Amino acid sequence: MSRIAFVNGQYVPHKDAAVHVEDRGYQFADGVYEVCEVWKSAIIDMPRHMDRLDRSLRELRIDWPLHRKALEFVMAETVRRNRVSDGIVYVQVTRGVARRDHFFPSGDVAPSIVVTARSANPKVADKQAETGIAVVTYPENRWPRVDIKTVALLPNVLAKQNAKEQGGKEAWYVDQDGNVTEGGSTNVWIVTKEGTLVTRPAESGILKGITRAVVLDLVERHGIAFEERPFSLEEAKQAREAFVTAASTLVMPVVKIDGSPVGNGHPGSVATALRDQFHTATDLHRL
Amino acid sequence: MSRIAFVNGQYVPHKDAAVHVEDRGYQFADGVYEVCEVWKSAIIDMPRHMDRLDRSLRELRIDWPLHRKALEFVMAETVRRNRVSDGIVYVQVTRGVARRDHFFPSGDVAPSIVVTARSANPKVADKQAETGIAVVTYPENRWPRVDIKTVALLPNVLAKQNAKEQGGKEAWYVDQDGNVTEGGSTNVWIVTKEGTLVTRPAESGILKGITRAVVLDLVERHGIAFEERPFSLEEAKQAREAFVTAASTLVMPVVKIDGSPVGNGHPGSVATALRDQFHTATDLHRL
Repeated sequence: MSRIAFVNGQYVPHKDAAVHVEDRGYQFADGVYEVCEVWKSAIIDMPRHMDRLDRSLRELRIDWPLHRKALEFVMAETVRRNRVSDGIVYVQVTRGVARRDHFFPSGDVAPSIVVTARSANPKVADKQAETGIAVVTYPENRWPRVDIKTVALLPNVLAKQNAKEQGGKEAWYVDQDGNVTEGGSTNVWIVTKEGTLVTRPAESGILKGITRAVVLDLVERHGIAFEERPFSLEEAKQAREAFVTAASTLVMPVVKIDGSPVGNGHPGSVATALRDQFHTATDLHRL
Repeated sequence: MSRIAFVNGQYVPHKDAAVHVEDRGYQFADGVYEVCEVWKSAIIDMPRHMDRLDRSLRELRIDWPLHRKALEFVMAETVRRNRVSDGIVYVQVTRGVARRDHFFPSGDVAPSIVVTARSANPKVADKQAETGIAVVTYPENRWPRVDIKTVALLPNVLAKQNAKEQGGKEAWYVDQDGNVTEGGSTNVWIVTKEGTLVTRPAESGILKGITRAVVLDLVERHGIAFEERPFSLEEAKQAREAFVTAASTLVMPVVKIDGSPVGNGHPGSVATALRDQFHTATDLHRL
Protein backbone atom coordinates (compact mmCIF):
# COMPACT_ATOMS: atom_id res chain seq x y z
CA MET A 1 0.00 0.00 0.00
CA SER A 2 1.30 3.42 -0.95
CA ARG A 3 2.05 5.64 2.03
CA ILE A 4 0.55 9.11 2.33
CA ALA A 5 2.11 12.31 3.63
CA PHE A 6 0.57 15.68 4.41
CA VAL A 7 2.61 18.51 2.90
CA ASN A 8 1.57 22.16 3.06
CA GLY A 9 -2.15 21.55 2.86
CA GLN A 10 -2.35 18.43 0.76
CA TYR A 11 -2.30 14.70 1.27
CA VAL A 12 0.08 13.27 -1.31
CA PRO A 13 1.62 9.87 -2.01
CA HIS A 14 4.75 9.53 0.11
CA LYS A 15 6.97 9.21 -2.95
CA ASP A 16 5.78 12.62 -4.18
CA ALA A 17 6.06 14.34 -0.79
CA ALA A 18 8.40 17.22 -1.51
CA VAL A 19 9.36 20.66 -0.29
CA HIS A 20 11.01 23.49 -2.19
CA VAL A 21 14.81 23.58 -2.28
CA GLU A 22 14.62 27.06 -0.72
CA ASP A 23 12.56 25.85 2.21
CA ARG A 24 14.49 27.22 5.17
CA GLY A 25 14.38 23.80 6.77
CA TYR A 26 16.58 22.54 3.94
CA GLN A 27 19.04 25.42 3.70
CA PHE A 28 19.25 26.60 7.33
CA ALA A 29 17.79 23.86 9.60
CA ASP A 30 15.32 26.60 10.48
CA GLY A 31 12.53 24.41 11.78
CA VAL A 32 11.23 22.20 14.56
CA TYR A 33 9.59 18.82 14.86
CA GLU A 34 7.73 16.36 17.05
CA VAL A 35 7.53 12.56 17.02
CA CYS A 36 4.50 10.99 18.73
CA GLU A 37 3.93 7.36 19.43
CA VAL A 38 0.87 5.72 17.88
CA TRP A 39 -0.36 2.91 20.10
CA LYS A 40 -3.48 0.81 19.64
CA SER A 41 -4.88 3.30 17.14
CA ALA A 42 -4.35 6.32 19.36
CA ILE A 43 -1.83 9.15 19.24
CA ILE A 44 -0.08 9.22 22.60
CA ASP A 45 0.15 12.43 24.64
CA MET A 46 -1.06 14.77 21.95
CA PRO A 47 -1.61 17.69 24.38
CA ARG A 48 1.94 17.52 25.72
CA HIS A 49 3.43 17.23 22.23
CA MET A 50 1.37 20.17 20.99
CA ASP A 51 2.40 22.23 24.04
CA ARG A 52 6.06 21.49 23.33
CA LEU A 53 5.63 22.27 19.63
CA ASP A 54 4.06 25.56 20.64
CA ARG A 55 7.06 26.34 22.83
CA SER A 56 9.55 25.41 20.08
CA LEU A 57 7.73 27.59 17.57
CA ARG A 58 7.59 30.50 20.00
CA GLU A 59 11.30 30.21 20.80
CA LEU A 60 12.10 30.51 17.09
CA ARG A 61 9.28 32.96 16.38
CA ILE A 62 7.72 30.71 13.74
CA ASP A 63 3.94 30.91 13.40
CA TRP A 64 1.73 27.86 13.74
CA PRO A 65 1.21 26.50 10.22
CA LEU A 66 -2.37 25.53 11.07
CA HIS A 67 -4.56 26.05 14.08
CA ARG A 68 -3.61 23.60 16.76
CA LYS A 69 -6.86 21.66 16.51
CA ALA A 70 -6.49 21.51 12.73
CA LEU A 71 -2.99 20.13 13.06
CA GLU A 72 -4.23 17.52 15.52
CA PHE A 73 -6.85 16.54 12.96
CA VAL A 74 -4.24 16.32 10.19
CA MET A 75 -2.00 14.16 12.37
CA ALA A 76 -4.85 11.77 13.11
CA GLU A 77 -5.93 11.75 9.47
CA THR A 78 -2.37 11.02 8.31
CA VAL A 79 -2.20 8.13 10.76
CA ARG A 80 -5.57 6.84 9.51
CA ARG A 81 -4.67 7.17 5.83
CA ASN A 82 -1.50 5.17 6.44
CA ARG A 83 -3.48 2.57 8.41
CA VAL A 84 -1.06 2.87 11.30
CA SER A 85 -2.33 1.28 14.50
CA ASP A 86 1.11 1.07 16.14
CA GLY A 87 4.01 3.23 15.06
CA ILE A 88 4.82 6.92 14.98
CA VAL A 89 3.53 10.16 13.54
CA TYR A 90 6.11 12.81 12.62
CA VAL A 91 5.43 16.54 12.36
CA GLN A 92 7.88 19.11 11.01
CA VAL A 93 7.33 22.86 10.82
CA THR A 94 9.82 25.24 9.22
CA ARG A 95 9.96 28.98 8.68
CA GLY A 96 8.84 28.43 5.09
CA VAL A 97 10.18 29.12 1.62
CA ALA A 98 12.09 32.29 0.87
CA ARG A 99 14.97 33.50 -1.27
CA ARG A 100 18.08 32.33 0.55
CA ASP A 101 19.19 34.81 3.24
CA HIS A 102 20.07 34.06 6.85
CA PHE A 103 17.75 36.76 8.20
CA PHE A 104 14.13 35.88 8.85
CA PRO A 105 12.20 36.57 5.66
CA SER A 106 10.38 39.87 5.65
CA GLY A 107 6.78 39.91 4.57
CA ASP A 108 4.20 37.23 4.74
CA VAL A 109 5.98 33.88 4.38
CA ALA A 110 3.85 30.92 5.43
CA PRO A 111 5.55 28.28 7.56
CA SER A 112 5.91 24.86 5.97
CA ILE A 113 4.25 21.82 7.49
CA VAL A 114 4.94 18.15 6.86
CA VAL A 115 3.22 15.25 8.59
CA THR A 116 4.14 11.61 8.00
CA ALA A 117 3.22 8.39 9.76
CA ARG A 118 4.54 4.88 9.67
CA SER A 119 3.87 1.55 11.31
CA ALA A 120 6.27 -0.14 13.67
CA ASN A 121 5.71 -3.53 15.21
CA PRO A 122 5.77 -2.91 18.97
CA LYS A 123 7.13 -6.43 19.46
CA VAL A 124 10.44 -5.37 17.95
CA ALA A 125 11.09 -2.76 20.65
CA ASP A 126 9.66 -5.07 23.31
CA LYS A 127 12.11 -7.76 22.28
CA GLN A 128 14.96 -5.25 22.34
CA ALA A 129 13.88 -4.21 25.84
CA GLU A 130 14.20 -7.80 27.04
CA THR A 131 17.94 -7.71 26.43
CA GLY A 132 18.54 -3.95 26.67
CA ILE A 133 20.88 -1.80 24.63
CA ALA A 134 24.51 -0.70 24.76
CA VAL A 135 25.34 3.02 24.75
CA VAL A 136 28.55 4.79 23.81
CA THR A 137 29.54 8.12 25.31
CA TYR A 138 30.35 11.22 23.28
CA PRO A 139 31.65 14.64 24.37
CA GLU A 140 28.74 17.11 24.63
CA ASN A 141 29.34 19.41 21.68
CA ARG A 142 25.97 20.88 20.83
CA TRP A 143 24.73 24.41 21.16
CA PRO A 144 23.03 25.36 24.45
CA ARG A 145 19.55 25.60 22.91
CA VAL A 146 18.97 21.86 22.67
CA ASP A 147 15.91 22.57 24.82
CA ILE A 148 14.28 23.59 21.51
CA LYS A 149 13.38 20.56 19.39
CA THR A 150 14.95 21.82 16.16
CA VAL A 151 15.93 19.91 13.03
CA ALA A 152 19.55 21.09 13.40
CA LEU A 153 20.35 17.47 14.28
CA LEU A 154 23.65 16.91 12.49
CA PRO A 155 25.64 16.77 15.77
CA ASN A 156 23.21 14.13 17.06
CA VAL A 157 23.50 12.17 13.81
CA LEU A 158 27.29 12.04 14.15
CA ALA A 159 27.21 11.10 17.84
CA LYS A 160 24.70 8.31 17.21
CA GLN A 161 26.55 7.04 14.17
CA ASN A 162 29.72 6.88 16.27
CA ALA A 163 27.82 4.85 18.87
CA LYS A 164 26.57 2.47 16.22
CA GLU A 165 30.06 1.91 14.88
CA GLN A 166 31.21 1.06 18.42
CA GLY A 167 28.42 -1.50 18.76
CA GLY A 168 25.90 0.74 20.55
CA LYS A 169 22.32 1.72 19.84
CA GLU A 170 22.49 5.17 21.41
CA ALA A 171 25.02 7.90 22.22
CA TRP A 172 25.26 9.39 25.71
CA TYR A 173 26.51 12.95 25.80
CA VAL A 174 28.96 13.72 28.61
CA ASP A 175 29.67 17.36 29.42
CA GLN A 176 32.88 19.05 30.57
CA ASP A 177 32.04 18.35 34.21
CA GLY A 178 31.78 14.64 33.52
CA ASN A 179 27.98 14.64 33.77
CA VAL A 180 25.74 12.76 31.40
CA THR A 181 23.41 15.27 29.73
CA GLU A 182 21.14 13.22 27.46
CA GLY A 183 21.19 10.68 24.67
CA GLY A 184 21.44 11.47 20.98
CA SER A 185 17.65 11.20 20.77
CA THR A 186 16.63 10.13 24.29
CA ASN A 187 16.58 11.28 27.92
CA VAL A 188 18.79 9.34 30.33
CA TRP A 189 18.08 7.78 33.71
CA ILE A 190 19.89 5.67 36.28
CA VAL A 191 18.92 3.76 39.41
CA THR A 192 21.68 4.24 41.96
CA LYS A 193 23.25 1.49 44.01
CA GLU A 194 20.99 2.65 46.82
CA GLY A 195 17.93 2.19 44.63
CA THR A 196 17.12 5.83 43.88
CA LEU A 197 15.92 6.71 40.41
CA VAL A 198 17.81 9.75 39.06
CA THR A 199 17.39 11.92 36.01
CA ARG A 200 18.79 15.31 35.21
CA PRO A 201 16.69 18.50 35.42
CA ALA A 202 15.37 19.50 32.02
CA GLU A 203 15.02 23.24 32.49
CA SER A 204 17.98 23.81 30.18
CA GLY A 205 20.77 21.93 28.45
CA ILE A 206 18.61 19.00 27.36
CA LEU A 207 15.29 18.44 25.67
CA LYS A 208 12.37 18.09 28.06
CA GLY A 209 11.08 14.75 26.86
CA ILE A 210 7.37 13.94 26.77
CA THR A 211 8.14 10.31 27.55
CA ARG A 212 10.26 11.60 30.43
CA ALA A 213 7.23 13.52 31.75
CA VAL A 214 5.07 10.39 31.60
CA VAL A 215 7.70 8.43 33.52
CA LEU A 216 7.81 11.19 36.13
CA ASP A 217 4.04 10.82 36.54
CA LEU A 218 4.47 7.08 37.07
CA VAL A 219 7.25 7.70 39.55
CA GLU A 220 5.00 9.96 41.56
CA ARG A 221 2.02 7.66 41.33
CA HIS A 222 3.98 4.66 42.55
CA GLY A 223 6.03 6.55 45.12
CA ILE A 224 9.33 5.46 43.61
CA ALA A 225 12.39 6.93 45.36
CA PHE A 226 13.51 9.67 43.01
CA GLU A 227 15.95 12.57 42.68
CA GLU A 228 16.04 15.09 39.86
CA ARG A 229 19.72 16.05 39.67
CA PRO A 230 22.70 15.73 37.34
CA PHE A 231 24.64 12.48 37.50
CA SER A 232 28.15 11.72 36.33
CA LEU A 233 29.30 9.08 33.90
CA GLU A 234 31.18 7.54 36.81
CA GLU A 235 28.00 7.24 38.85
CA ALA A 236 26.16 5.79 35.85
CA LYS A 237 28.79 3.13 35.37
CA GLN A 238 28.36 2.07 38.99
CA ALA A 239 24.57 2.30 38.94
CA ARG A 240 22.28 -0.63 39.61
CA GLU A 241 20.50 0.05 36.36
CA ALA A 242 20.17 2.58 33.57
CA PHE A 243 17.68 3.33 30.85
CA VAL A 244 16.70 5.86 28.20
CA THR A 245 13.32 7.26 27.25
CA ALA A 246 11.88 8.51 23.95
CA ALA A 247 8.54 8.42 22.15
CA SER A 248 9.81 5.86 19.66
CA THR A 249 11.33 3.40 22.13
CA LEU A 250 9.50 4.33 25.38
CA VAL A 251 11.52 3.04 28.33
CA MET A 252 14.56 1.16 27.02
CA PRO A 253 16.98 -0.52 29.45
CA VAL A 254 20.68 0.24 29.03
CA VAL A 255 22.88 -2.72 29.91
CA LYS A 256 26.28 -1.50 28.76
CA ILE A 257 28.06 1.86 28.82
CA ASP A 258 31.24 2.10 26.72
CA GLY A 259 31.55 -1.67 26.89
CA SER A 260 31.16 -1.97 30.70
CA PRO A 261 28.09 -3.78 31.98
CA VAL A 262 25.59 -1.79 34.05
CA GLY A 263 24.59 -3.57 37.26
CA ASN A 264 24.30 -7.26 36.53
CA GLY A 265 24.39 -6.62 32.78
CA HIS A 266 20.68 -7.29 32.33
CA PRO A 267 17.65 -4.97 32.17
CA GLY A 268 16.79 -3.68 35.62
CA SER A 269 13.52 -4.15 37.47
CA VAL A 270 12.70 -0.43 37.67
CA ALA A 271 13.11 0.10 33.93
CA THR A 272 11.15 -3.03 33.15
CA ALA A 273 8.31 -2.07 35.48
CA LEU A 274 8.15 1.47 34.09
CA ARG A 275 8.05 0.07 30.57
CA ASP A 276 5.26 -2.35 31.47
CA GLN A 277 3.20 0.36 33.15
CA PHE A 278 3.97 3.07 30.63
CA HIS A 279 0.61 3.27 28.91
CA THR A 280 -1.29 3.43 32.18
CA ALA A 281 -0.06 7.03 32.45
CA THR A 282 -0.42 8.29 28.90
CA ASP A 283 -3.11 10.39 27.31
CA LEU A 284 -4.79 8.69 24.33
CA HIS A 285 -5.96 10.74 21.35
CA ARG A 286 -8.16 8.15 19.64
CA LEU A 287 -8.33 8.11 15.86
CA MET B 1 12.37 35.05 -17.07
CA SER B 2 11.77 31.90 -15.09
CA ARG B 3 14.78 30.86 -13.04
CA ILE B 4 16.26 27.39 -13.39
CA ALA B 5 17.64 25.08 -10.72
CA PHE B 6 19.55 21.82 -11.01
CA VAL B 7 18.10 19.17 -8.69
CA ASN B 8 19.33 15.60 -8.59
CA GLY B 9 20.21 15.32 -12.26
CA GLN B 10 17.66 17.61 -13.85
CA TYR B 11 17.36 21.27 -14.73
CA VAL B 12 13.91 22.36 -13.58
CA PRO B 13 12.06 25.66 -13.28
CA HIS B 14 12.97 27.24 -9.96
CA LYS B 15 9.37 27.14 -8.74
CA ASP B 16 9.32 23.34 -9.21
CA ALA B 17 12.73 22.77 -7.61
CA ALA B 18 11.92 20.34 -4.82
CA VAL B 19 13.45 17.66 -2.66
CA HIS B 20 11.77 14.83 -0.81
CA VAL B 21 10.52 15.51 2.72
CA GLU B 22 12.74 12.65 3.91
CA ASP B 23 15.84 14.18 2.39
CA ARG B 24 18.27 14.13 5.30
CA GLY B 25 19.08 17.75 4.64
CA TYR B 26 15.51 18.61 5.62
CA GLN B 27 15.10 16.35 8.65
CA PHE B 28 18.65 16.32 10.09
CA ALA B 29 20.64 19.22 8.55
CA ASP B 30 22.80 16.38 7.24
CA GLY B 31 24.43 18.22 4.38
CA VAL B 32 26.96 20.80 3.25
CA TYR B 33 27.03 23.72 0.85
CA GLU B 34 29.14 26.25 -1.02
CA VAL B 35 28.38 29.75 -2.28
CA CYS B 36 30.58 31.07 -5.09
CA GLU B 37 30.66 34.55 -6.47
CA VAL B 38 29.85 35.00 -10.16
CA TRP B 39 31.71 38.02 -11.53
CA LYS B 40 31.83 39.19 -15.12
CA SER B 41 30.47 35.87 -16.34
CA ALA B 42 32.99 33.79 -14.46
CA ILE B 43 32.68 31.63 -11.35
CA ILE B 44 35.25 32.87 -8.85
CA ASP B 45 37.73 30.49 -7.22
CA MET B 46 36.11 27.28 -8.36
CA PRO B 47 39.14 25.12 -7.43
CA ARG B 48 39.22 26.40 -3.86
CA HIS B 49 35.47 26.00 -3.44
CA MET B 50 35.59 22.46 -4.82
CA ASP B 51 38.51 21.62 -2.52
CA ARG B 52 36.55 22.86 0.47
CA LEU B 53 33.42 21.00 -0.64
CA ASP B 54 35.55 17.88 -0.91
CA ARG B 55 36.79 18.39 2.65
CA SER B 56 33.26 19.01 4.00
CA LEU B 57 31.97 15.86 2.29
CA ARG B 58 34.86 13.79 3.59
CA GLU B 59 34.39 15.06 7.14
CA LEU B 60 30.74 13.92 7.03
CA ARG B 61 31.48 10.84 4.92
CA ILE B 62 29.07 11.87 2.19
CA ASP B 63 29.98 10.80 -1.35
CA TRP B 64 30.36 13.29 -4.16
CA PRO B 65 26.98 13.47 -5.90
CA LEU B 66 28.68 13.86 -9.28
CA HIS B 67 32.27 13.76 -10.41
CA ARG B 68 33.95 17.01 -9.53
CA LYS B 69 34.34 18.08 -13.14
CA ALA B 70 30.69 17.23 -13.81
CA LEU B 71 29.61 19.36 -10.86
CA GLU B 72 31.73 22.23 -12.14
CA PHE B 73 29.99 21.88 -15.48
CA VAL B 74 26.55 21.85 -13.82
CA MET B 75 27.41 24.95 -11.81
CA ALA B 76 28.51 26.81 -14.94
CA GLU B 77 25.46 25.57 -16.86
CA THR B 78 23.11 26.68 -14.05
CA VAL B 79 24.72 30.11 -14.10
CA ARG B 80 24.36 30.26 -17.90
CA ARG B 81 20.73 29.10 -17.90
CA ASN B 82 19.89 31.81 -15.38
CA ARG B 83 21.78 34.39 -17.44
CA VAL B 84 23.77 35.42 -14.40
CA SER B 85 26.80 37.54 -15.21
CA ASP B 86 27.20 38.93 -11.69
CA GLY B 87 25.73 37.21 -8.65
CA ILE B 88 26.17 33.90 -6.88
CA VAL B 89 25.91 30.19 -7.53
CA TYR B 90 24.81 27.98 -4.62
CA VAL B 91 25.56 24.27 -4.28
CA GLN B 92 24.08 22.00 -1.61
CA VAL B 93 24.85 18.32 -1.12
CA THR B 94 23.09 16.15 1.46
CA ARG B 95 23.31 12.52 2.50
CA GLY B 96 20.23 11.79 0.42
CA VAL B 97 16.74 10.46 0.96
CA ALA B 98 16.11 7.67 3.44
CA ARG B 99 13.47 6.54 5.89
CA ARG B 100 13.92 8.80 8.93
CA ASP B 101 16.57 7.46 11.31
CA HIS B 102 19.49 9.38 12.82
CA PHE B 103 22.03 6.73 11.79
CA PHE B 104 23.59 6.98 8.35
CA PRO B 105 21.40 5.02 5.94
CA SER B 106 22.65 1.55 5.20
CA GLY B 107 22.78 0.47 1.60
CA ASP B 108 23.20 2.49 -1.50
CA VAL B 109 21.62 5.88 -0.89
CA ALA B 110 22.63 8.52 -3.44
CA PRO B 111 23.52 11.94 -2.06
CA SER B 112 21.22 14.77 -3.10
CA ILE B 113 22.52 17.70 -5.09
CA VAL B 114 20.94 21.11 -5.64
CA VAL B 115 22.50 23.97 -7.63
CA THR B 116 20.90 27.39 -7.94
CA ALA B 117 22.15 30.72 -9.27
CA ARG B 118 20.90 34.24 -9.05
CA SER B 119 21.93 37.68 -10.21
CA ALA B 120 23.02 40.44 -7.86
CA ASN B 121 23.92 43.92 -8.93
CA PRO B 122 27.53 44.43 -7.77
CA LYS B 123 26.82 48.13 -7.37
CA VAL B 124 24.61 47.41 -4.38
CA ALA B 125 27.43 45.86 -2.36
CA ASP B 126 29.86 48.49 -3.67
CA LYS B 127 27.57 51.21 -2.42
CA GLN B 128 27.25 49.48 0.94
CA ALA B 129 31.04 49.26 1.11
CA GLU B 130 31.29 53.02 0.69
CA THR B 131 29.59 53.56 4.04
CA GLY B 132 30.40 50.23 5.71
CA ILE B 133 28.23 48.13 7.97
CA ALA B 134 27.43 47.90 11.67
CA VAL B 135 27.95 44.58 13.47
CA VAL B 136 26.42 43.33 16.71
CA THR B 137 28.20 40.84 18.94
CA TYR B 138 26.70 37.54 20.06
CA PRO B 139 28.02 34.91 22.49
CA GLU B 140 29.69 32.08 20.56
CA ASN B 141 27.26 29.21 21.03
CA ARG B 142 27.84 26.88 18.11
CA TRP B 143 29.26 23.39 18.05
CA PRO B 144 33.04 23.10 17.56
CA ARG B 145 32.77 21.71 14.01
CA VAL B 146 31.94 25.02 12.36
CA ASP B 147 35.04 24.34 10.27
CA ILE B 148 32.71 22.09 8.22
CA LYS B 149 30.40 24.14 5.99
CA THR B 150 27.18 22.38 7.00
CA VAL B 151 23.58 23.50 6.57
CA ALA B 152 23.02 23.25 10.35
CA LEU B 153 22.82 27.04 10.29
CA LEU B 154 20.01 27.77 12.74
CA PRO B 155 22.40 29.24 15.37
CA ASN B 156 23.80 31.57 12.70
CA VAL B 157 20.29 32.54 11.60
CA LEU B 158 19.38 33.55 15.15
CA ALA B 159 22.63 35.46 15.74
CA LYS B 160 22.26 37.37 12.48
CA GLN B 161 18.58 38.08 13.08
CA ASN B 162 19.49 39.49 16.49
CA ALA B 163 22.09 41.72 14.81
CA LYS B 164 19.53 42.94 12.31
CA GLU B 165 17.08 43.82 15.05
CA GLN B 166 19.80 45.85 16.76
CA GLY B 167 20.46 47.76 13.55
CA GLY B 168 23.40 45.64 12.31
CA LYS B 169 24.07 43.78 9.08
CA GLU B 170 26.19 41.03 10.61
CA ALA B 171 26.71 39.24 13.92
CA TRP B 172 30.17 38.88 15.44
CA TYR B 173 30.61 35.83 17.62
CA VAL B 174 32.60 36.42 20.82
CA ASP B 175 33.88 33.38 22.70
CA GLN B 176 34.30 32.78 26.44
CA ASP B 177 37.78 34.30 26.38
CA GLY B 178 36.45 37.52 24.92
CA ASN B 179 37.89 36.80 21.47
CA VAL B 180 35.99 37.42 18.27
CA THR B 181 35.70 34.11 16.39
CA GLU B 182 33.90 34.92 13.16
CA GLY B 183 30.78 36.51 11.77
CA GLY B 184 27.44 34.80 11.30
CA SER B 185 28.39 34.20 7.66
CA THR B 186 31.74 35.97 7.30
CA ASN B 187 35.35 35.91 8.49
CA VAL B 188 36.48 38.86 10.61
CA TRP B 189 39.52 41.14 10.36
CA ILE B 190 40.88 44.22 12.07
CA VAL B 191 43.68 46.68 11.43
CA THR B 192 45.28 47.53 14.76
CA LYS B 193 46.09 51.00 15.97
CA GLU B 194 49.67 50.25 14.90
CA GLY B 195 48.50 49.42 11.37
CA THR B 196 48.82 45.63 11.46
CA LEU B 197 46.17 43.58 9.73
CA VAL B 198 44.96 40.74 12.00
CA THR B 199 42.72 37.76 11.46
CA ARG B 200 42.24 34.66 13.52
CA PRO B 201 43.75 31.30 12.51
CA ALA B 202 41.25 29.12 10.70
CA GLU B 203 42.57 25.67 11.55
CA SER B 204 39.62 25.10 13.89
CA GLY B 205 36.74 26.96 15.50
CA ILE B 206 35.80 28.94 12.40
CA LEU B 207 35.18 28.30 8.74
CA LYS B 208 38.22 28.69 6.54
CA GLY B 209 36.83 31.21 4.10
CA ILE B 210 37.75 31.19 0.43
CA THR B 211 37.46 34.97 0.30
CA ARG B 212 39.74 35.01 3.35
CA ALA B 213 42.31 32.95 1.43
CA VAL B 214 42.21 35.39 -1.49
CA VAL B 215 42.74 38.32 0.87
CA LEU B 216 45.71 36.49 2.40
CA ASP B 217 47.19 36.16 -1.10
CA LEU B 218 46.76 39.89 -1.60
CA VAL B 219 48.33 40.59 1.78
CA GLU B 220 51.37 38.57 0.84
CA ARG B 221 51.61 40.04 -2.65
CA HIS B 222 51.49 43.60 -1.37
CA GLY B 223 53.64 42.99 1.71
CA ILE B 224 50.95 44.26 4.08
CA ALA B 225 51.91 44.03 7.78
CA PHE B 226 49.94 41.03 8.99
CA GLU B 227 49.49 38.74 11.98
CA GLU B 228 47.37 35.60 12.07
CA ARG B 229 46.24 35.42 15.69
CA PRO B 230 43.07 35.68 17.78
CA PHE B 231 41.93 39.17 18.70
CA SER B 232 39.59 40.29 21.44
CA LEU B 233 36.42 42.31 21.16
CA GLU B 234 38.21 44.98 23.19
CA GLU B 235 41.04 45.17 20.67
CA ALA B 236 38.54 45.28 17.81
CA LYS B 237 36.71 48.20 19.38
CA GLN B 238 39.97 50.12 19.59
CA ALA B 239 41.16 49.11 16.13
CA ARG B 240 41.90 51.57 13.35
CA GLU B 241 39.58 49.65 11.07
CA ALA B 242 37.65 46.41 10.78
CA PHE B 243 36.05 44.42 8.01
CA VAL B 244 34.44 41.09 7.15
CA THR B 245 34.93 38.81 4.17
CA ALA B 246 32.59 36.40 2.36
CA ALA B 247 31.96 35.29 -1.21
CA SER B 248 28.71 37.24 -1.39
CA THR B 249 30.01 40.56 -0.05
CA LEU B 250 33.80 40.22 -0.68
CA VAL B 251 35.60 42.70 1.58
CA MET B 252 33.03 44.71 3.55
CA PRO B 253 34.19 47.48 5.93
CA VAL B 254 32.80 47.43 9.48
CA VAL B 255 32.30 50.91 10.89
CA LYS B 256 30.42 50.14 14.08
CA ILE B 257 30.60 47.39 16.70
CA ASP B 258 27.71 47.24 19.17
CA GLY B 259 26.99 50.87 18.44
CA SER B 260 30.57 52.15 18.96
CA PRO B 261 32.36 53.58 15.93
CA VAL B 262 35.47 51.77 14.70
CA GLY B 263 38.38 54.13 14.06
CA ASN B 264 37.02 57.34 12.58
CA GLY B 265 33.66 55.68 11.90
CA HIS B 266 34.27 55.40 8.16
CA PRO B 267 35.55 52.55 5.98
CA GLY B 268 39.30 52.14 6.40
CA SER B 269 41.93 52.40 3.72
CA VAL B 270 43.17 48.82 4.05
CA ALA B 271 39.67 47.35 3.65
CA THR B 272 38.93 49.65 0.75
CA ALA B 273 42.17 48.82 -1.04
CA LEU B 274 41.68 45.08 -0.52
CA ARG B 275 38.16 45.37 -1.90
CA ASP B 276 39.35 47.30 -4.93
CA GLN B 277 42.13 44.82 -5.66
CA PHE B 278 40.13 41.74 -4.82
CA HIS B 279 39.64 40.36 -8.32
CA THR B 280 43.30 40.74 -9.19
CA ALA B 281 43.92 37.70 -6.98
CA THR B 282 41.00 35.44 -7.85
CA ASP B 283 40.80 32.46 -10.14
CA LEU B 284 38.23 32.86 -12.92
CA HIS B 285 36.27 29.87 -14.19
CA ARG B 286 34.84 31.34 -17.38
CA LEU B 287 31.39 30.28 -18.49
